[in-house]
Amino acid sequence: MIYSRTFDILGISGSLRQASYNTALLRAAEELMRTNMFMEIFDLSPLPMFSQELENPFPESVVHFRARLAQADAVLIATPEYNASISGVLKNAIDWASRPPQNPLNGKPVAIMGASKGNFGTLRAQLHLRQILTHVGALPLGKPEVLVARAEQVFNAEGKLVDPATGGYLQDLLTALASWIQLVEGVTGSLVRR
Amino acid sequence: MIYSRTFDILGISGSLRQASYNTALLRAAEELMRTNMFMEIFDLSPLPMFSQELENPFPESVVHFRARLAQADAVLIATPEYNASISGVLKNAIDWASRPPQNPLNGKPVAIMGASKGNFGTLRAQLHLRQILTHVGALPLGKPEVLVARAEQVFNAEGKLVDPATGGYLQDLLTALASWIQLVEGVTGSLVRR
Amino acid sequence: MIYSRTFDILGISGSLRQASYNTALLRAAEELMRTNMFMEIFDLSPLPMFSQELENPFPESVVHFRARLAQADAVLIATPEYNASISGVLKNAIDWASRPPQNPLNGKPVAIMGASKGNFGTLRAQLHLRQILTHVGALPLGKPEVLVARAEQVFNAEGKLVDPATGGYLQDLLTALASWIQLVEGVTGSLVRR
Amino acid sequence: MIYSRTFDILGISGSLRQASYNTALLRAAEELMRTNMFMEIFDLSPLPMFSQELENPFPESVVHFRARLAQADAVLIATPEYNASISGVLKNAIDWASRPPQNPLNGKPVAIMGASKGNFGTLRAQLHLRQILTHVGALPLGKPEVLVARAEQVFNAEGKLVDPATGGYLQDLLTALASWIQLVEGVTGSLVRR
Repeated sequence: MIYSRTFDILGISGSLRQASYNTALLRAAEELMRTNMFMEIFDLSPLPMFSQELENPFPESVVHFRARLAQADAVLIATPEYNASISGVLKNAIDWASRPPQNPLNGKPVAIMGASKGNFGTLRAQLHLRQILTHVGALPLGKPEVLVARAEQVFNAEGKLVDPATGGYLQDLLTALASWIQLVEGVTGSLVRR
Repeated sequence: MIYSRTFDILGISGSLRQASYNTALLRAAEELMRTNMFMEIFDLSPLPMFSQELENPFPESVVHFRARLAQADAVLIATPEYNASISGVLKNAIDWASRPPQNPLNGKPVAIMGASKGNFGTLRAQLHLRQILTHVGALPLGKPEVLVARAEQVFNAEGKLVDPATGGYLQDLLTALASWIQLVEGVTGSLVRR
Repeated sequence: MIYSRTFDILGISGSLRQASYNTALLRAAEELMRTNMFMEIFDLSPLPMFSQELENPFPESVVHFRARLAQADAVLIATPEYNASISGVLKNAIDWASRPPQNPLNGKPVAIMGASKGNFGTLRAQLHLRQILTHVGALPLGKPEVLVARAEQVFNAEGKLVDPATGGYLQDLLTALASWIQLVEGVTGSLVRR
Repeated sequence: MIYSRTFDILGISGSLRQASYNTALLRAAEELMRTNMFMEIFDLSPLPMFSQELENPFPESVVHFRARLAQADAVLIATPEYNASISGVLKNAIDWASRPPQNPLNGKPVAIMGASKGNFGTLRAQLHLRQILTHVGALPLGKPEVLVARAEQVFNAEGKLVDPATGGYLQDLLTALASWIQLVEGVTGSLVRR
């Protein structure tokens, strides 16, 4: 497939921990991006807890987050699984993003992945996340699913990906995401095909 | 049913807004409590965003929250529905509660209710919340379900409950919760405590 | 939008009842189809209960169902809600469809709607159905959601749609489905077929 | 714990296949039952597809199923995972059970387990099943979860359990179920304690 331009991806990790496997997964994806994609990994830690009382006007960190989402061609989310769901941190960020007057996730292509130390690779968190994203009008890529189990064997102590199979899954996800972005843009007629 | 003692209930609202319908729902439940129950409504706003890096030691607000959960005979959660799930605020609180060395939600009786302006009364949020609570080892009461739809007609401008039917549902929930607490305590043989 | 051809839609009702509100909803959608769509409503009642022991070869009714799915440009599902999920009848049909060697739901555009007598309009059933369809590789349309509550007021005794608002929602769903089909076909480069 | 009597368990497998891993899991549980429990494994294959038109009167197989459920002290379900949910076969059985005038699952203790060839051990199916059971008023045991992954290594060619760890998990589940039955009966005052 020939891409007509470079895609601007916003990467979001649902974990605030410096040594987070999910942030490491985003970085691994970034390294695999070819010339048609670049990614900024957005730091969710400045966002306050959501309250409607903080909306008029939005806090500066929220304004920045929403503007960056609006600008991106797509979002790549790396979700941890906390208690069979996504983290409060990630849910809080989506709650801020979804607010009127302009929900920047509406119509936005999103790819999902996740890493955990256990056997299930964030399977339950991803089920919740897809429901939430569909509700806010985002367009989550259905397949491939990237479920990184036993993350301590997949990354080394420096957070580098050391499992080639996982690298392949990430590559497949990025390829599918590029197609998905073009697919979605095709509906609105804004795709410049050659 | 004769209760051997007074039950200590911790009330949690998933919304931080002062005029929250869910906090109003907790207050309405508090007013309906008979002599066998008293409730403290816990304020989640001091809790920081969860990160494993903040765990050693826990922040003071987290220590207080966990201690209060451990002490309570049961928890009564009023959940809003944000984007087809619970709020990031509530999820973040559960994430803090669930951490080792002692998860105070393990084995804890929990009753669930929720209020929303729409037609569904937090139905989807409660589906997620039950999965999350079951995962952390809490014992959520299955029935009755309290789903308060069109909340702006159920509470007046001061946040007072003005719908008698909802009052009845709350009463049923509290009655079931009292039985549930005794049921759960029965397993451990500690039924009669004073 | 100009459609290059007529779309072949397979309609599936998750209820076997003659007077089913969901079958009535399919018929109402059929009447609203413009010249660019036609629909066959498939009868699930001949399908046996799934067992791997019945797969070699597939029963004739299953062969027919799978062939018809493969041929269709898209599927329109009207799901009842039984016990907070889809019906066993609908799940059984999807179980048959999903089997190797060729899963005809893979990559297939699907639109979802549902009718119930209660207040929730099959909300929970649609949550499960989206998870199931995403898993089998189908491409369920995210929006609009068509949730027909209090169905006994929406259809008359003959099963005719008598609620104009619901007619509008159906029309929106069909319009979105037509775009969705073209979108999906666009990926494979086969957009203009005649 | 001293049991005052023998518990009557109804075992249900969500798979109709003769060599089903889930039926094998039920048989393995049966062998582990001590003198305080006995189980009948109920065959779901005679149940027709649910339709309201078949309800007056219920088919004979349905009458038998509902009576057997009503009589049992508890239900032990072994669920396969088909397409990220329970099987149509199992859902159809629950749909028959839940119908008025007397839903025999209401208030019934239920234990859940499941076996699959993949890595997830029916995790997603159990999430759906818990929601469905809670909705019909059953009392599903929250913990322990029994998720048998890579079932082809856990059972031999004759369907005998050959993995001691899984045997331990089953034993824990049965012990918890016995306590759960007594707990639930305790509420209604029908427990004969010594």
